[in-house]
Amino acid sequence: MAKEKLWGGRFAQATDELVEQFNASIDVDARMYAEDIEGSRAHARMLGRQGILSDEDVAAILQGLDTVQAEIEAGDLTFSVALEDVHMNIEARLTELIGDAGKRLHTGRSRNDQVATDTRLYLRRRCDEIIAQIRRLQSVLVTLAQTHADTIMPGFTHLQTAQPVTLGHHLLAYTEMLHRDAGRFADARARMNQCPLGSAALAGTTFAIDREMTAAALGFDQPCQNSLDAVSDRDFIIELLSAAAITSVHLSRFSEELILWMSAQFGFVELPDAYCTGSSIMPQKKNPDMPELVRGKSGRIIGGLVAMLVTLKSLPLAYNKDMQEDKGAVFDALDQLQGCLAIFTAMLPGMKVHEEAMRRAAAAGFATATDLADALVRAGVPFREAHAIVGKSVAWCIEHDIELHELDATACAAIDARLQPAMVSALSVDACVRARDHVGGTAPDQVRKQVRWWKERLDEV
Amino acid sequence: MAKEKLWGGRFAQATDELVEQFNASIDVDARMYAEDIEGSRAHARMLGRQGILSDEDVAAILQGLDTVQAEIEAGDLTFSVALEDVHMNIEARLTELIGDAGKRLHTGRSRNDQVATDTRLYLRRRCDEIIAQIRRLQSVLVTLAQTHADTIMPGFTHLQTAQPVTLGHHLLAYTEMLHRDAGRFADARARMNQCPLGSAALAGTTFAIDREMTAAALGFDQPCQNSLDAVSDRDFIIELLSAAAITSVHLSRFSEELILWMSAQFGFVELPDAYCTGSSIMPQKKNPDMPELVRGKSGRIIGGLVAMLVTLKSLPLAYNKDMQEDKGAVFDALDQLQGCLAIFTAMLPGMKVHEEAMRRAAAAGFATATDLADALVRAGVPFREAHAIVGKSVAWCIEHDIELHELDATACAAIDARLQPAMVSALSVDACVRARDHVGGTAPDQVRKQVRWWKERLDEV
Amino acid sequence: MAKEKLWGGRFAQATDELVEQFNASIDVDARMYAEDIEGSRAHARMLGRQGILSDEDVAAILQGLDTVQAEIEAGDLTFSVALEDVHMNIEARLTELIGDAGKRLHTGRSRNDQVATDTRLYLRRRCDEIIAQIRRLQSVLVTLAQTHADTIMPGFTHLQTAQPVTLGHHLLAYTEMLHRDAGRFADARARMNQCPLGSAALAGTTFAIDREMTAAALGFDQPCQNSLDAVSDRDFIIELLSAAAITSVHLSRFSEELILWMSAQFGFVELPDAYCTGSSIMPQKKNPDMPELVRGKSGRIIGGLVAMLVTLKSLPLAYNKDMQEDKGAVFDALDQLQGCLAIFTAMLPGMKVHEEAMRRAAAAGFATATDLADALVRAGVPFREAHAIVGKSVAWCIEHDIELHELDATACAAIDARLQPAMVSALSVDACVRARDHVGGTAPDQVRKQVRWWKERLDEV
Amino acid sequence: MAKEKLWGGRFAQATDELVEQFNASIDVDARMYAEDIEGSRAHARMLGRQGILSDEDVAAILQGLDTVQAEIEAGDLTFSVALEDVHMNIEARLTELIGDAGKRLHTGRSRNDQVATDTRLYLRRRCDEIIAQIRRLQSVLVTLAQTHADTIMPGFTHLQTAQPVTLGHHLLAYTEMLHRDAGRFADARARMNQCPLGSAALAGTTFAIDREMTAAALGFDQPCQNSLDAVSDRDFIIELLSAAAITSVHLSRFSEELILWMSAQFGFVELPDAYCTGSSIMPQKKNPDMPELVRGKSGRIIGGLVAMLVTLKSLPLAYNKDMQEDKGAVFDALDQLQGCLAIFTAMLPGMKVHEEAMRRAAAAGFATATDLADALVRAGVPFREAHAIVGKSVAWCIEHDIELHELDATACAAIDARLQPAMVSALSVDACVRARDHVGGTAPDQVRKQVRWWKERLDEV
Repeated sequence: MAKEKLWGGRFAQATDELVEQFNASIDVDARMYAEDIEGSRAHARMLGRQGILSDEDVAAILQGLDTVQAEIEAGDLTFSVALEDVHMNIEARLTELIGDAGKRLHTGRSRNDQVATDTRLYLRRRCDEIIAQIRRLQSVLVTLAQTHADTIMPGFTHLQTAQPVTLGHHLLAYTEMLHRDAGRFADARARMNQCPLGSAALAGTTFAIDREMTAAALGFDQPCQNSLDAVSDRDFIIELLSAAAITSVHLSRFSEELILWMSAQFGFVELPDAYCTGSSIMPQKKNPDMPELVRGKSGRIIGGLVAMLVTLKSLPLAYNKDMQEDKGAVFDALDQLQGCLAIFTAMLPGMKVHEEAMRRAAAAGFATATDLADALVRAGVPFREAHAIVGKSVAWCIEHDIELHELDATACAAIDARLQPAMVSALSVDACVRARDHVGGTAPDQVRKQVRWWKERLDEV
Repeated sequence: MAKEKLWGGRFAQATDELVEQFNASIDVDARMYAEDIEGSRAHARMLGRQGILSDEDVAAILQGLDTVQAEIEAGDLTFSVALEDVHMNIEARLTELIGDAGKRLHTGRSRNDQVATDTRLYLRRRCDEIIAQIRRLQSVLVTLAQTHADTIMPGFTHLQTAQPVTLGHHLLAYTEMLHRDAGRFADARARMNQCPLGSAALAGTTFAIDREMTAAALGFDQPCQNSLDAVSDRDFIIELLSAAAITSVHLSRFSEELILWMSAQFGFVELPDAYCTGSSIMPQKKNPDMPELVRGKSGRIIGGLVAMLVTLKSLPLAYNKDMQEDKGAVFDALDQLQGCLAIFTAMLPGMKVHEEAMRRAAAAGFATATDLADALVRAGVPFREAHAIVGKSVAWCIEHDIELHELDATACAAIDARLQPAMVSALSVDACVRARDHVGGTAPDQVRKQVRWWKERLDEV
Repeated sequence: MAKEKLWGGRFAQATDELVEQFNASIDVDARMYAEDIEGSRAHARMLGRQGILSDEDVAAILQGLDTVQAEIEAGDLTFSVALEDVHMNIEARLTELIGDAGKRLHTGRSRNDQVATDTRLYLRRRCDEIIAQIRRLQSVLVTLAQTHADTIMPGFTHLQTAQPVTLGHHLLAYTEMLHRDAGRFADARARMNQCPLGSAALAGTTFAIDREMTAAALGFDQPCQNSLDAVSDRDFIIELLSAAAITSVHLSRFSEELILWMSAQFGFVELPDAYCTGSSIMPQKKNPDMPELVRGKSGRIIGGLVAMLVTLKSLPLAYNKDMQEDKGAVFDALDQLQGCLAIFTAMLPGMKVHEEAMRRAAAAGFATATDLADALVRAGVPFREAHAIVGKSVAWCIEHDIELHELDATACAAIDARLQPAMVSALSVDACVRARDHVGGTAPDQVRKQVRWWKERLDEV
Repeated sequence: MAKEKLWGGRFAQATDELVEQFNASIDVDARMYAEDIEGSRAHARMLGRQGILSDEDVAAILQGLDTVQAEIEAGDLTFSVALEDVHMNIEARLTELIGDAGKRLHTGRSRNDQVATDTRLYLRRRCDEIIAQIRRLQSVLVTLAQTHADTIMPGFTHLQTAQPVTLGHHLLAYTEMLHRDAGRFADARARMNQCPLGSAALAGTTFAIDREMTAAALGFDQPCQNSLDAVSDRDFIIELLSAAAITSVHLSRFSEELILWMSAQFGFVELPDAYCTGSSIMPQKKNPDMPELVRGKSGRIIGGLVAMLVTLKSLPLAYNKDMQEDKGAVFDALDQLQGCLAIFTAMLPGMKVHEEAMRRAAAAGFATATDLADALVRAGVPFREAHAIVGKSVAWCIEHDIELHELDATACAAIDARLQPAMVSALSVDACVRARDHVGGTAPDQVRKQVRWWKERLDEV
């Protein structure tokens, strides 16, 4: 019978079973039980102080909620699909336990403001977790960067050898990206930290509620200032998904590099056995599964972002049932992201770096060509002409199968009168990285300076 | 110890527990157990016929696989995360049951071709189910269209009243869309119906296997013609997701209309109680939750499509672990789509149509204006001038708050000498729809003709 | 000949013409000419102060850049596809004008840091424009909200009549959304406001540059702290696209409502003729094209966001040519968004509101049911029971085709003994909205309070 | 004045200029002028045969259309934004030229069916072009595969050396993918090849038109069978975008490989100078810009697909202005895809393959391990045990820094009694690839067989 539903008064027919399954959100929103109970506690206390509920009712509700929470955490409460969601399941159990007082708890609120409040509380916590995880991963990177402040590797553009860089410098690039990622989560958290409770169904309530009180009790900065907006919008979820998607794109880039570096062709690093798996058919294989999975998860997280954008697109105000899809999308995306962050944080310290292979690769491929051009510029040649002279030198070297520093005086003279053998013989990858000694440059001293700055900053947090 | 893994021979360290969780796919791929066993049966029989396995081994394997399948279906086999996936879980249990013969089953294949084969078998079945579901929903629509071949409603463009149409005609528009949707699933199914088995890890195998035999045994049209492609590509999954996304967009459009039609403002239909829910706070509410959810699910399904496109983007050949994400995306999207189709098929027959409200709306808003222009054209006025005369007539009617058919002779004369009172008085919504009596037009006779055509076609299937 | 290219020294073959077209970005990046020149000015001055360029060279460069800028703005400089991009076009022209000094300008920088700097400068300006446009649209909404602080309309959930709200309250919901949208642009702007210049190709430069000086000259908060990151990442573009996508989703929701409201069925508003178009065939049509287009543009803007996420996914450091696609995506998305904002800002003041139709709709459909339940609660009935009693009352009304306030004493008694005729007769939409008089509620006084708050805030800006 | 608009009859106010810009589609749809004229010709002839237009009018129209087309192609007709789109521009010019007959052309049709018809005609042609381009790229690949049927390279899974394959085999994998891509375009073309003309605004027309006649004249298979569907749906555009997106993902994978292969670390290939560019700062650079751009374009094309899915989501029937965004999305995506196909087709024949480097890489990294396991299986060892023995052998080799074929009798005995020195000494990459000699396997003979099959098939087309 429809009468079993808490909203069934005006209904003649019972809900179809298929509908009940399709409609229920309890599988997804059960996770928010603690936030739901926390919100109910704040609501009950406020109703009490405003004289809307009696002190006895408030006491009964608070005690009843404790019992329900204990039951849930002990695994003693089985959630029912017929009761649709975590809110109705908890309220129904509460009423079973304490009778009429339980039926009074919903005074002056609606599931619309309740679910909006729960979701913000829950995601606020996830935000904090993610920011902390990002900080931990940054710490791992900074420690690695310190170790490898002097480790020389080829820097690539277009995946072609460009100029020598230090591995420490390279790792700190990800520290910077992660810093902005954490910043986006922090901004999203600040923007969402307003309390929908008291917006009721969409317009507020006729009871003399105190929204500042509940907002403060729940740690929100203030109540949402427009009830229609408070129950209708899910932009805070899209913003979180966007922050997650960008972070996952950053991790996909780092993953791609780890996979490349672990190939036989690069041979720059080896990931620990514990983070690799083998093949069911090829006995020699040791595969970098973790970075591959992390790279792949970026698709899933971006998919979640798109899902929410599509779902919200062109929905009229206020609440529409479509919005129920919000939690599935964002919970899964954050689960995946947190898994990726945890894996990277655990995996990187055990990574073996083949420093010799890196240095060898940096020394090949004319990586010092820019420095030769710079030397010509210092001798008064305009940069564009210096560039052309070195271009010609490289072509010469390719033809004669030598490296730039192997050009002798005859060759130099043949290429361009302005090209001095001393310029050529001064070329080395060590000189290259040492010379880039300004803010943000790849010089070991700059890397160490950045490491110190990060260490202080990350310790603070 | 890594030695517990079927691939652990060359590994010194055990897999990290976090990695094990992150890496395992058994939660998702367990669904394909029947297809995995079916593929193993075909593979074992082929190895037997080719003399690669002994008859005794083949017999033991087949019997063992029967036992494993029975155990799974009885709920007696608990899948292990340490064994990663459905393939390894089944093989491990088989070997437990039958010993060495079990260890021989993997001869000449790899998990790479095995999972590609299982996935195609499994999705082929889902395709067939979806096509059948679409046919059922089309049948429901065609039956409704027959009932409402004469029911007049306003046709809209830009959500403004445009011209009267019949509800039957409107419903058949969705039948057409669904027909193309089914066609896309059928095309995808045909394109994916090639057998990867025997591609082994990526290059084929050194055993003298017969790929035609396994392909035929599993109902595939032929073996995949290139082993690298067979294990590397998942375009068949993207194509299915695309077909699902387009279908879900069609359902989102139908949902939007049902939601509009059930609003107090339109009042065109009422959905059955069993497919609606109420409000926890507003006792009068009866909400069209099902079309709302179906509309919202389009986001989730489109999200799945994007996820796979992103995941596959720029992966080098052959198998990469990123591809493990494929099943989660496509299984969820198809689950959602099948739920939507089932809900619509069950819900629509009980929908109450308020024919009078539809007709009233069709009669208002100058819906017959085009027919007045057409009458002028028949009297020799060029269409563009006729259009302008009727535009002027509409402006007159708005000013005087009357409908077009209420224009009297004086008014007609004042508007334009060519506007005859007889043209005006002939206007009616019934005449409007009857007059559009050509292929694809909205006339009741055309609707009935289309209904007959569809009934024959859908009966065939 | 490849020699014509500024980078052609080592190349033997000329660039294929098809390649030249495909490769060039001048069609898109020409827009950034002013930022490119501004960046070059800052770079030249810094090189001068650091003694890397002579004062004469710096003077020649600055004067030459003035000339180039004047030529561009006068339309006298035709950009060449062979010169690939705006940077090379400007430098080539500069060198034509001033000779060797022009060839020295590129000392200590690369196109990689140059394009990253130009793009940030350009998008920073676009950000500021968008924030200003959002403020203007908010002002329009606040003014409308003030006018309609007492205008009663039905509030909807699930597009079913829920509770009466004021139009002013409804419009302020969008003001809140737009406030968060502006906040996201402001956060993105702050995060991107770091200067890549001096990062050179990827590792910094061997010249003794002063990156603080150029950063300050260009209005950046500081130099980017890692050169590899500075030239490799485009997360600032994704973040902007995400902010644009969310804003466009908000506008799509508002558009949907305007389209609904302008339908014959709702009849709540009429948009001005100047913002509508007609039909080529149906002379009576007046279509809300502008909100439809704005609603549709959300797809395009979301598409741009997805494009950039996909393009950046799994790119190894540092610069890769794929990243050239960034500007097309973000420029188009911002163009579309700015068009949408401009249209809404211009269109809304002329919108005609049919207040009577809104009030009539609010009074129908049992919109006061919640207030009846609240009245029962005040009389001591637990909320859940009150909800059930009102549900029964609504069912009764539907059966007898009356509204709630028409229930007489006999009916009340028949429904439930606790239902008092006085509770019923007190129901009115005016009472409903007046009663929701707390922070964020729909009461006219609350709306006026919010309007005052917004006016102060928006005046400040 | 609004009167200037062809639909302006009922309008009092002129269109706002900003609106005119935002509303107009002429910048995008001007491309379809030839299809628009072709459709008008067919429509006019049909109206003539049905006696709706006089023979003189038809003759005047046909001649007038010839003139308009000639003017457009000579660049003599300037399209006007005030006339909104290509349809109105052409009709207006026609009427200028031939007077009243021009005003009669729109009899029995609307822009809604007109634009749907034009778009299908135009995209049908683009489909045919793309299919032909795919065939040409396949031919290039097949020719290369023939050349490299015996060229041995390492096959990768997880980017780790897996087993030796032939380059010919690898290239044919892309031929297979492209074959399915072409199939998807062909299926989309077949599905869209129905004629909307005669659907008029949405409901058909009151004139006795012959839709079969126009459908046949325009090369369509039949008229669309439901007028509402014909003017409302754009699933054919989404399907095309999906086909384009999948093709672009395939090209992104190939691009990724070319970029990897051209890195110093792989050194497998070198792309021709004409398809590469250099660096503005690093004189030695030769960058694989073309594959990078093609890889990046996948984002843009996927973005277009998402844009259309979002735009169509939840649009009620029939035409809505949002749908105007369709052409921009699909035209750009197909332009990009066709550019990518053209570039690859032109670039690949000049690619230099470093066969020795490929072979050297294939011989390293234990790529023959699977074959050793297979040899053990042939000697009676169950596959899973064979796998473990070889795993142990690989671990031994890594420890002693030798390759598998270097294991001597002592080592074999120490590893496992079943491991025979003869098995080990037989290992070679040539033996490996030769042994995979079944359908789809990597053996040179299989590659040559496939090449023959493809050559016949591609010649046919």
